[in-house]
This record gives sequence, structure tokens and C-alpha cells, in this order.
Amino acid sequence: MVKRYRKEDENSYALGATLTVELLRYRPQIVNAVYYHSQCKDVALVESMCREHNIPLVQSDKAFNILSQKENCYILADFQKQNFSIDANTNHILLVNPSNAGNMGTILRSAAAFGITDVAIIAPAVDIYDPKTVRSSMGALFHVNFKYYDSFEDYRREAGQRKYYPFMLKATTTLKQVVPQYPCTLVFGNEATGLDDSYLSLGEPVIIRHTHNVDSLNLPIAASIALYQFFSETDK
Amino acid sequence: MVKRYRKEDENSYALGATLTVELLRYRPQIVNAVYYHSQCKDVALVESMCREHNIPLVQSDKAFNILSQKENCYILADFQKQNFSIDANTNHILLVNPSNAGNMGTILRSAAAFGITDVAIIAPAVDIYDPKTVRSSMGALFHVNFKYYDSFEDYRREAGQRKYYPFMLKATTTLKQVVPQYPCTLVFGNEATGLDDSYLSLGEPVIIRHTHNVDSLNLPIAASIALYQFFSETDK
Repeated sequence: MVKRYRKEDENSYALGATLTVELLRYRPQIVNAVYYHSQCKDVALVESMCREHNIPLVQSDKAFNILSQKENCYILADFQKQNFSIDANTNHILLVNPSNAGNMGTILRSAAAFGITDVAIIAPAVDIYDPKTVRSSMGALFHVNFKYYDSFEDYRREAGQRKYYPFMLKATTTLKQVVPQYPCTLVFGNEATGLDDSYLSLGEPVIIRHTHNVDSLNLPIAASIALYQFFSETDK
Repeated sequence: MVKRYRKEDENSYALGATLTVELLRYRPQIVNAVYYHSQCKDVALVESMCREHNIPLVQSDKAFNILSQKENCYILADFQKQNFSIDANTNHILLVNPSNAGNMGTILRSAAAFGITDVAIIAPAVDIYDPKTVRSSMGALFHVNFKYYDSFEDYRREAGQRKYYPFMLKATTTLKQVVPQYPCTLVFGNEATGLDDSYLSLGEPVIIRHTHNVDSLNLPIAASIALYQFFSETDK
């Protein structure tokens, strides 16, 4: 039976039909069970996908009372967390101490959109398996590899030879001036504090220039603009 | 005294110290009153700004019970809504039927960041003065002019000669291929439905190319990437 999500659990939950279908399509092997509400109007697609992969499909209104605050959630999936390793040969995004679940999900969505499938995270950080992150990723979580590290040095040991681009307000090179070298890692700091000054000596620090009408760009906005500039299709 | 916000009210609320200071700095003339909580630790800056502009400063815990669900909100401002007109000679962003208050605020923040101060909105649409929008704009609302229109044609009559760039998944020109002409209007549709096909014959439709790992980009992400590409400082 489902229970309220906790970070230390070995499973998490995909809330809603869209997410559940995305999960069943791309990672059916990690799905423990799918639950649907008695008021769910269209369970046919999920039913056939569950049958194909021998996944239990359970009608339970109680599961939704426990897990979902949203009124329009009538299907959910219980799935197993996975461990990934980071590919030393691909481009990465590195998030240093991200603290907001919704922001993390939005960044995953943009990373997947621009073809970045390796995401490294320096702890302490928000839990990538928080159902809020899963939801705001719109299923992009099921398209990426990610790994938590205790320090930047731990990450760097596994990351291979690459160019680093830390995004910082103190940088002098603007995003439009950068001539990207690949493979590379785009590095972003915490929502409130950004990256500390030690990152100024790492690779080529970059600033996304903006007017003084705002203090800073929202973190997922800055990360998405950078991902677009470095990796959108017509650029490579 | 403050009351729960409703769309038809002539005033709205800026919740939190950062927003209140931004409002007092840029549009003190529209502030009706500022409230602070008995647990507010640092009221000195707001106090001096209120004194300078003859704005009543009121200690009231009840105001926060009525208006704020956030625990860390100890200062708020009651301010008068304004009517603006759109400048026919500047660059605009046009939002067609946006439905989410947080998204609208994030788009305003990015618009202000990249120097776009004229925002047009086609109704039906979310209320730009919803305190949630004000908050997620991080004060950018106080840097922009905006106006609601009943139809695109109503907007077009006031917008002057300009180039239109509707952002659509059915477009063939990619954002990186566009050679921007100014003044222009970037046009974005509703979160769920995008722009309808009638916009395919307007100006030069544009797509932000992405992989098939995601169905679409989040609306504020797409709008912010476009704003960056068209208007960021080093580009003009």
C-alpha cells in the first residue's frame, strides 16, 4: 500500500496520468504498482501498459487521499528509486546546493529538452525524488541520469576531462560571448546565494547580462537560457 | 484595514519585505499603507521610506493572518492598482490567455531583466495584480507597463507598425535562425493550448527547437529564452 513519501524511502510516486504514462513508457521496469481513483474516467491506456509489463493495477481512493493534494489527480504510480552513474564523456549540468523541488523539476525538464541527460548535484540539496520534483519535471526525470556528490571535488574526480562554465554574477564573460567547448559542465549555485567566489577560478565563469530592473534571474530561467545557448539543436 | 484580495478590488498587496521595499523605491505614489507584524525584526528601512513619502505604517498581526499563508512574511504593502497604456514605439511581449499567476510573475521578471517594459495581455487571462503574480514577479511588476485587451485586433490597433514573432510548435523558423527586426512583439499562447493556427499567418512564427524527450518547454522558460535571444544587452 502507498504511504506518505519520505526522503529515505526506496520508492517514490508519480502523481497524475501524464506522468504515469511517461514512466510506463520509458522506465516500466521500475514501476511497482499503478493506482487509479474510482472517479478516473479513462484507465484504458494505463491498463494495457500495465498488462504488457505485468505491473499490478489497483483501484484505491485511499492512495490519493494519502499522496495527492491536487483535485485532478486520478492515476498515480509507485516506482523504485534508481542509482545512476555520470557519463564522463557527455555534457553535464551541475547544481550546487539547489533547495527548491519545483525549480529542480523545471531544470530537469529544460535539460531533457536540450539533450542534456547527465545531471550532477552537490549536497546538501533538495531530494530529486520528491514527488513535487517528479511532477514539475513533467516526466523529464525519467529521461536523465543523475548523481549526488558530497563536494565539487568528488564530482570532478568522476567527471573526466572537460571545460567548466560556472554561472556567476561576478563573471565578466557574457553568455553571448562564450565560444563553447565540449564536453563541458554548466555549473549553477543555490537559489538565494549563487556560487561562492571559489568558483571564479574554475574554467570560464559566465554571466547572463540583464538590466538592473531585477536583482537576478530566477534559477531555472538562468539555467534554461544557458542550456539553450550551449546545446539547442541548430547551434551544434 | 486590509481584506482578502479579490480581482475587482481597486487595490492589491505586495507581500514581504523585499517586494515592499521595491514598491516603495519605484512607485511610492501608489502605496496606500504598509503593515508590519509584531515579530518583524527590522522595520527601520521601511519606516524611513514611509516617513519620506508620508505613507501610513501600521503594526497589525491580523493583516498577515488575512493575507499571507507564508510564515516568513512580516511586512506587506497595500497599493493602488494603476492603468497603463502601451508604447507603440517600443518592443513588447504579448501574452494570449495566460492562466497561471506564478508563470505570469516569472515572465514579468524576465521581461524586466531583458529591458522589455511593455506587456500586453489578451483576456481571458490571469489577473496580473493577483498577489501571487506580484510576489513571483519579485517586484518586476513595478517596472513594467501592461494593458489587457479583449482581442488581438484590439491590441494591434494600438501597437503601431511592428514585426510580430508568434512562438509556435508548428513554426518552421527556429529561434537561432531569426534575424530580429525592431520594434517587435513576441507573442506567446496559453500554457496548455499554445497559440491557435490563426497566428501562423502573423509576422514570422518561431519555434524554440528541442528534443522529443519533452512535449514542450514550460511557458516562462520559453518566453525567457526568447526574451534573452531577442533583447539581451550584448546582442543589440
